[in-house]
Amino acid sequence: MTTESAFIAALRNLATHPAARGLNDDCAVLELGSETLILTHDAMAEGVHFLSGQDPADVAWKLVATNLSDLAAKGAEPLGVLLGYQLGGDDARFLAGLGEVLTHYNVPLLGGDTISATGAQVLGLTALGRATHRPVPSRSGAQPGDNLWLTGTVGAAMLGFEALKAGDGDSLAYRRPAALLDQGRALAPLVSAMMDVSDGLLLDAQRLAEASQVTIDIDHTAVPIATPEARRDEAMRWGDDYQLLFALPAQITPPVPAHRIGRVLARGPAALLLGGIEPVGTLGYEHH
Amino acid sequence: MTTESAFIAALRNLATHPAARGLNDDCAVLELGSETLILTHDAMAEGVHFLSGQDPADVAWKLVATNLSDLAAKGAEPLGVLLGYQLGGDDARFLAGLGEVLTHYNVPLLGGDTISATGAQVLGLTALGRATHRPVPSRSGAQPGDNLWLTGTVGAAMLGFEALKAGDGDSLAYRRPAALLDQGRALAPLVSAMMDVSDGLLLDAQRLAEASQVTIDIDHTAVPIATPEARRDEAMRWGDDYQLLFALPAQITPPVPAHRIGRVLARGPAALLLGGIEPVGTLGYEHH
Repeated sequence: MTTESAFIAALRNLATHPAARGLNDDCAVLELGSETLILTHDAMAEGVHFLSGQDPADVAWKLVATNLSDLAAKGAEPLGVLLGYQLGGDDARFLAGLGEVLTHYNVPLLGGDTISATGAQVLGLTALGRATHRPVPSRSGAQPGDNLWLTGTVGAAMLGFEALKAGDGDSLAYRRPAALLDQGRALAPLVSAMMDVSDGLLLDAQRLAEASQVTIDIDHTAVPIATPEARRDEAMRWGDDYQLLFALPAQITPPVPAHRIGRVLARGPAALLLGGIEPVGTLGYEHH
Repeated sequence: MTTESAFIAALRNLATHPAARGLNDDCAVLELGSETLILTHDAMAEGVHFLSGQDPADVAWKLVATNLSDLAAKGAEPLGVLLGYQLGGDDARFLAGLGEVLTHYNVPLLGGDTISATGAQVLGLTALGRATHRPVPSRSGAQPGDNLWLTGTVGAAMLGFEALKAGDGDSLAYRRPAALLDQGRALAPLVSAMMDVSDGLLLDAQRLAEASQVTIDIDHTAVPIATPEARRDEAMRWGDDYQLLFALPAQITPPVPAHRIGRVLARGPAALLLGGIEPVGTLGYEHH
């Protein structure tokens, strides 16, 4: 079987339209009349992206919120979602969670498709938004001299996931991530590059550096973590926190709460440094 | 487990935005700036919507073409698609078919998501288009006195499916349906109602009648069929042909090849008649 990364590399040959951004960004960005559309689609499978037996209301929340987080990284205003739903265990709970998340973010359900199939449940969601600022932020604009910022802590989702696996469902961080739409809109006119942290801070920072053809040096002592200090390194490599990671010219202070966690340098031998040294080991959740 | 129709009925309570059209239409229709967006999403599962072992290139074709057919029923010009792909058996063949269908219809791949999961392969596709005529055709505008038209034959996909199951892959009708985009655009300014026939002519005609609050009387001898005469009734209840079904005021002749197959009447006790008599039995592919 093909790996995800090999498939995406092959897919890239078909995605030649500029709106696809070479499949290297969080979203497609399509000019249409007087508007700029922002489009994203995520799929989630039982046993891979969510636990079998997890509350379907939380699964619905996460499916919507993670797609809205992609829109947030573009400073987009959501216009609606389309749901691809495979009937599963407790569909009423899924509907309850779907209603909650759509109400919370005031996003309309526009359509979709419902199917019956055997095997692990696979869900898909397309979110559609309109740009509130042009040019639309991308991963590729970071400039040497910029500072690197993060909107909040990493590691909370890791702790939440561990609690959930241990049977403690109190933590919301893994179950019900927040999409930072307001922050993304406030930042969009200012940032030179922005993305959401879905697969791990170090991995996603490396991607931003690669897309921008720069080196990013993260001061790991400056990264705010939700874990005990002993787990700092793990927290920086775990995903699912959906903070916004962005580069700002040195003279600009962000208009929303955020932590300065590093600097953008001219491209050196490594795309990512941690306190000046190239980090070793797995940087985050890699798609194989 | 919930049935598809029960789930969709519950989903309808969440889909209150006018763009969702009450989930009763083929697409969502969203006003945005100077444009009207047309949005549709279909999911397909191995063993349900396509055969296990079917050529993945044909599966890719069908996934794209059936979504484009929904756009055709709205007279829309496609803007692009987003793919939710679960890695499966022969991903290279899927990519080959995807490239073929996107090139054939000149539609860009804008983005999507690729996942690995166990079990039956589940695929999703979102297609996005812009309206070429406003108001955008719906299922609900048919008027008493209109004639009912169909762009071509029904039953070819049924024969193609049977051939494929028998090991004969020559027939394209089931494997590679056509999306009638040009016909849809030509018809959109003229029709009082339009939809594509995906689940069976009789079932879809009944849906159009219900949405329009009229009765449709189909002259079954006038329905063009691709099968021997003995299978006329089956051909009218099988789906997958993706012809356009539409109502036109009596004085209008369609600008594309089409067959007049019935009349629109004031609503009587039954939504659908066949030669003046209410048909019995299953009208098409029902979602349970």
